[in-house]
Amino acid sequence: MKTITSLSQMLKTSLALRKKGKVIGFVPTMGFLHEGHLSLVREAKRKSDVAVVSIFVNPTQFGPEEDFQKYPRDLNRDRKLLQQAKCDFLFCPYQKQIYPPGHSTHVDQEDLTERLEGASRPGHFRGVVTVVAKLFNIVQPDLAFFGQKDAQQVVVIKKMAAELNFPIEIVTCPTVRDQNGLALSSRNAYLNADECRQALSLSEALQKAKDLIRLGEKDPRAVTNTMREVIQKNSSALIEYIALTDAKKLKPVDKIQRDVLISLAVRIGTTRLIDNICLKVNEKVREIRC
Amino acid sequence: MKTITSLSQMLKTSLALRKKGKVIGFVPTMGFLHEGHLSLVREAKRKSDVAVVSIFVNPTQFGPEEDFQKYPRDLNRDRKLLQQAKCDFLFCPYQKQIYPPGHSTHVDQEDLTERLEGASRPGHFRGVVTVVAKLFNIVQPDLAFFGQKDAQQVVVIKKMAAELNFPIEIVTCPTVRDQNGLALSSRNAYLNADECRQALSLSEALQKAKDLIRLGEKDPRAVTNTMREVIQKNSSALIEYIALTDAKKLKPVDKIQRDVLISLAVRIGTTRLIDNICLKVNEKVREIRC
Repeated sequence: MKTITSLSQMLKTSLALRKKGKVIGFVPTMGFLHEGHLSLVREAKRKSDVAVVSIFVNPTQFGPEEDFQKYPRDLNRDRKLLQQAKCDFLFCPYQKQIYPPGHSTHVDQEDLTERLEGASRPGHFRGVVTVVAKLFNIVQPDLAFFGQKDAQQVVVIKKMAAELNFPIEIVTCPTVRDQNGLALSSRNAYLNADECRQALSLSEALQKAKDLIRLGEKDPRAVTNTMREVIQKNSSALIEYIALTDAKKLKPVDKIQRDVLISLAVRIGTTRLIDNICLKVNEKVREIRC
Repeated sequence: MKTITSLSQMLKTSLALRKKGKVIGFVPTMGFLHEGHLSLVREAKRKSDVAVVSIFVNPTQFGPEEDFQKYPRDLNRDRKLLQQAKCDFLFCPYQKQIYPPGHSTHVDQEDLTERLEGASRPGHFRGVVTVVAKLFNIVQPDLAFFGQKDAQQVVVIKKMAAELNFPIEIVTCPTVRDQNGLALSSRNAYLNADECRQALSLSEALQKAKDLIRLGEKDPRAVTNTMREVIQKNSSALIEYIALTDAKKLKPVDKIQRDVLISLAVRIGTTRLIDNICLKVNEKVREIRC
C-alpha cells in the first residue's frame, strides 16, 4: 500500500491509472476505521482494479458545537488495517491543502438536506458534498463506496453525483453491526460500558419496527411510538428524531408501503448515534439499501 | 465535425478520447457565435488534440427579469461557423437533460460573486459555475477556454475549478473587438444603428482610462469620473457600474498600481452591455488578461 498526502501526487497517480485502463474504486472515510469501513474496502477491491481509501476528518461537516476536535484519530492503526484489507492507495491530505486560506467554493444539495440529519445538523451536508466533490476530482474514481449506516448521506451523494454529472457509480454497502446488533461507528469509541448497553436500544427499536411491519402494520405513528418506548426505557437515551420516510426523497410517509427508510438519531449521554434500516414492503418485507 | 446532443454520448466520447491520450480543449458557449467565440475555438485547436464546443443557453444564469427567452439563437449558422473553425465536436444538450425535474444541486462561489456583475445580477454566477461544473464532468476537458470580455466570469471559474480540484487548465483569451472598438457580444444583436454608435462609448471610456493611467494617474476616482463623462454624453446610455478593482479578488482599489481591472456595465437603451480592460501598472502600463 502506498500512502499519498499531496493532492497533486494523488491526481497524477489517478490519471496515470485511468490512462492504463484501470478501474478505480474509492472509499472516502474520516479514519478511525472499523469493520464497516473495511467491508467497503473489500467491496472496492472486488469491484475495481485499484482501491483508494482517503482519510480526512473534514472540518466543514462538523457544526461549531460538534466533536471535530475530539473526533477519534489513529492513523498508524488505520494504516495497518488498510494494509490487511489489501488497500492499494491511502490518501490522507492535509487540511490546508484541501481548504487553503480564502477557500470559498462549495457544493450544495438543497432538496434532501433539510430533513433528518440535515435538520439536526445545519450545514453538515454542504460540508459533506463539497469535500466529496473535491475528492472525486482528485481521486478520479469509477466507483465510490458508502455505507448504508449513513443512509441520508448516500442518498444525498447519489443525487449530487448524478446532478453534477460525475461519471461515477455510487455503491451502497450494508451496515455492519457487532454481535449485539450495534451499528459500527467511529463515535462508539465515546461510549462507556453502560452507554454501550443502552446504545443497543437503537438497533432493538429498528428490529421491533421491522417485526411490526412484517406483521402488517401500515401506520408510521404506531411504529414510531413502539420504537420510542423501546429507547426511552434507557435512562441516558435522548431521542433526537425517529422518522419513517420514503427512501429516495426522504419525505415522511403517511402509510407504510413500497420502500421505507426508518431512521433515528439518539443521544446516549453526550454521544450522538444514528442508525437505520431500509425496507421494501411488498407481500414480503425485506431489507434493502438506499 | 460531429454534433452530440446526449449527455451519455458526450461523456462516452470524452472518456474514449482521454483513454487514447488525446488532449481535450473545451469552449463552453451560449451560441449565436461571433468572432470572439471563434477565437476561443482556434486557440483550443492550437493547444489541444480535440476541440469540443458546447452550445447551451443556460436558464439558471439569467435573472427572472432578464433576456433568457429572447436571447438570440441560430444553431444552423453556429454549426457552419464551427465547421469552418475546424471544431471537432459540437455538444448541444437539451435543457431537460441538463436540468431534469427536481434538479437541486448547485455549486456556489461566494467570495468573488457579490461585486460587479454579481451585485447587478443576483444568482447569475451560481448558475454559471453550476453549469460549468456539470459541463466539465460531461466533457472531461484538459483545458477550457474563456474570453477576457467576461472578466469576472473568468476569475470566478478559475477559483471554482481550483477549489473543487478540477484537473483542468483555464485559459483566458483576449477580448475581440470590431473595427470601431466595440467588444463583440451576442447581445450586440439587440442594438439598432444609433445604439451601436452610442455603445462605442464603453470602449472609448476604457481607452481614455488607459491613457490617463499611462500619463501617471493613480486615483481611481479621477479615472471613473472621466469614464463617466465619456459615456454620459450619450442620451441612451445608463451606467450601472464603473469599477477599478484588483484583478484577483475583485476588490475596489484605493490607488492604481500592480494589476487593475477596469470594468463597467452600461445599458444602451434596453440592452445591457459589459466591457473591461485589465492593466499591469509598473513603470510601463500594458494590457493583460485575468
